[in-house]
Amino acid sequence: MRETLADWRPAIDEAIADLVPREIDAAYLESFFGVPTYEYDPVGLQRALSTPLWELLDRGGKRWRAVLFLVFVEEFGADPAEYLPYACIPEILHNGTIIVDDVEDEATIRRGEPALHRIYGRDVALNVGNAMYFLPLKIIAQDPADLPADRRLAAYEMLMHELNRTHLGQGMDIAWHNEREVRVGIEEYLEMCACKTGCLGRIVARLAAIVTDQPPSVEDAVAKYAELTAVAFQIGDDILDVEHSLGRAGEFGKAFGNDIREGKKTLMVIHAIRESERERARRLQNILEKDENTDDEVLEAFSILEDAGSIEYARERALELAAQARAAIDGLDFDAETTRKLNEFTEFVIERDE
Amino acid sequence: MRETLADWRPAIDEAIADLVPREIDAAYLESFFGVPTYEYDPVGLQRALSTPLWELLDRGGKRWRAVLFLVFVEEFGADPAEYLPYACIPEILHNGTIIVDDVEDEATIRRGEPALHRIYGRDVALNVGNAMYFLPLKIIAQDPADLPADRRLAAYEMLMHELNRTHLGQGMDIAWHNEREVRVGIEEYLEMCACKTGCLGRIVARLAAIVTDQPPSVEDAVAKYAELTAVAFQIGDDILDVEHSLGRAGEFGKAFGNDIREGKKTLMVIHAIRESERERARRLQNILEKDENTDDEVLEAFSILEDAGSIEYARERALELAAQARAAIDGLDFDAETTRKLNEFTEFVIERDE
Repeated sequence: MRETLADWRPAIDEAIADLVPREIDAAYLESFFGVPTYEYDPVGLQRALSTPLWELLDRGGKRWRAVLFLVFVEEFGADPAEYLPYACIPEILHNGTIIVDDVEDEATIRRGEPALHRIYGRDVALNVGNAMYFLPLKIIAQDPADLPADRRLAAYEMLMHELNRTHLGQGMDIAWHNEREVRVGIEEYLEMCACKTGCLGRIVARLAAIVTDQPPSVEDAVAKYAELTAVAFQIGDDILDVEHSLGRAGEFGKAFGNDIREGKKTLMVIHAIRESERERARRLQNILEKDENTDDEVLEAFSILEDAGSIEYARERALELAAQARAAIDGLDFDAETTRKLNEFTEFVIERDE
Repeated sequence: MRETLADWRPAIDEAIADLVPREIDAAYLESFFGVPTYEYDPVGLQRALSTPLWELLDRGGKRWRAVLFLVFVEEFGADPAEYLPYACIPEILHNGTIIVDDVEDEATIRRGEPALHRIYGRDVALNVGNAMYFLPLKIIAQDPADLPADRRLAAYEMLMHELNRTHLGQGMDIAWHNEREVRVGIEEYLEMCACKTGCLGRIVARLAAIVTDQPPSVEDAVAKYAELTAVAFQIGDDILDVEHSLGRAGEFGKAFGNDIREGKKTLMVIHAIRESERERARRLQNILEKDENTDDEVLEAFSILEDAGSIEYARERALELAAQARAAIDGLDFDAETTRKLNEFTEFVIERDE
């Protein structure tokens, strides 16, 4: 998978630059957005749109959503190069959500540098993030692969379905963040992940199936694979926060246990609250509720998670989801090499160490 | 027009409540967003979605986008009651942009009460605002009027075109706000209005034409009407800020001259900078650049605008745009009563006093 990533990345970035050039001018604006009634201001739009967008993209990101799309397209018998513009759709959507999430979470750092709103202001960041929700959706209408009308309509209906669920997932996550008590259970947590992270994965898979005209059973199977892998990824992310923290607790005074400090209701926390004896569950709840935590409190929270077997439980659930993801595409009769890549990817999302 | 507004409003609000009920439960979530993979959290989504959405809608707003849509639909020979769900599309989009704009502008007040993000937090406000960009777009796929596939696709392509331009307009406005100097000219100002405010108007008109299957010439004509009226409205809005301020300057210590204090590059300001002699233009620029203004400075800015004839100029441009809007639908052979209503509306947007 990693070789493929490296191979495709320049082509993907080129396709994104076709959509939003690094240097924009009136000719680009006219060709992409239509003839103006009066006159566009390319100078202002360079500052408000292109510069912040490329600032984020140039910081990295693995473009794995675009690559996964291309892997599916190739497996479905089409030429990935021909579908590069479509590969940008989930990639730009994803980066747009990152910008908006960072404003919502009041994040300070993104990919090792200041979050976009800290550089350009909240207004520019939000507008570019929101613009990135709609820019890629225009690709379907531009129709670079000359798709029949029913495929274009199917793509729009799918995108509207999944993007609605994305906001549902984010809504649940935010609601829980603003509550003090740990109110929800494991099923709600998994649903939040399935909506918030899973739907972008589903867009990757379903779009590949739609543009290459696969039957519904195939579209459903790859969507399931992508959703399950995304949920496993999200749980892997939560585990990583604890493990990284345990590895470097106190080291150089670095921040650790960010999720605990933020009072995040992770799968581990939800599990520990249910499985611990009353006093320890109450103590964990109490540490999560505090606005500020000492290092000792964070370590105490970790030990409650460990004693309840919650880290192990989360890892097992993630592995189980990854296995379900592999099973979802098992009947698809994919090429052995593709299957190997896709299976490897379900392991990578849990076992990665960054 | 105002009678129609009052008549339709309860039905419009009912249609919106069909889309996002005031009280949401698992059954609604399942029917609108699809069967969950795991389990939704209606309690959290009530707090993060339905409550803030209705908080804003219940504060008022004239729903004129929905009403204008219904006026067009009726004129196009269809039963407005049948198209009520579609009337919600521009209305919910508009209210979503209001929530997001208020976060971007760090607004404190909306419709006489605290801006949503001041009550629910920036995270909830932004997510509900963004959710309102996608919730209404699902109506096309739900297809309550049983439209043929080509009409649904045309609706999506139109919406993606206009929503992209909306973000372009907002991007220009934000870029200028963040610049100190008044760099742009009148044509760019009008384009910003055409994109930012005009595109939502165009959605109203084009959607009505698309769902009732009008020829392109009719769709273009009503789109032009709506865009021109919206630009006139925007200029009217800027004039209103000055006139209100002149009327109550100093009264009870109330804030006045908000646009000047915010350094907003209105049509009047752009005109005055170009038409005033060098020294006065520089002084106006200087007042706009300041982070804080005294009341005397605001009054001085007003007198520069007045001396340059900029308030009169703006009113004339608005009247001219309104006349162009009326001319745009002149050849359409609309019913005399509809034409009267639509013409009256172009005057109302400039002459209104609130």
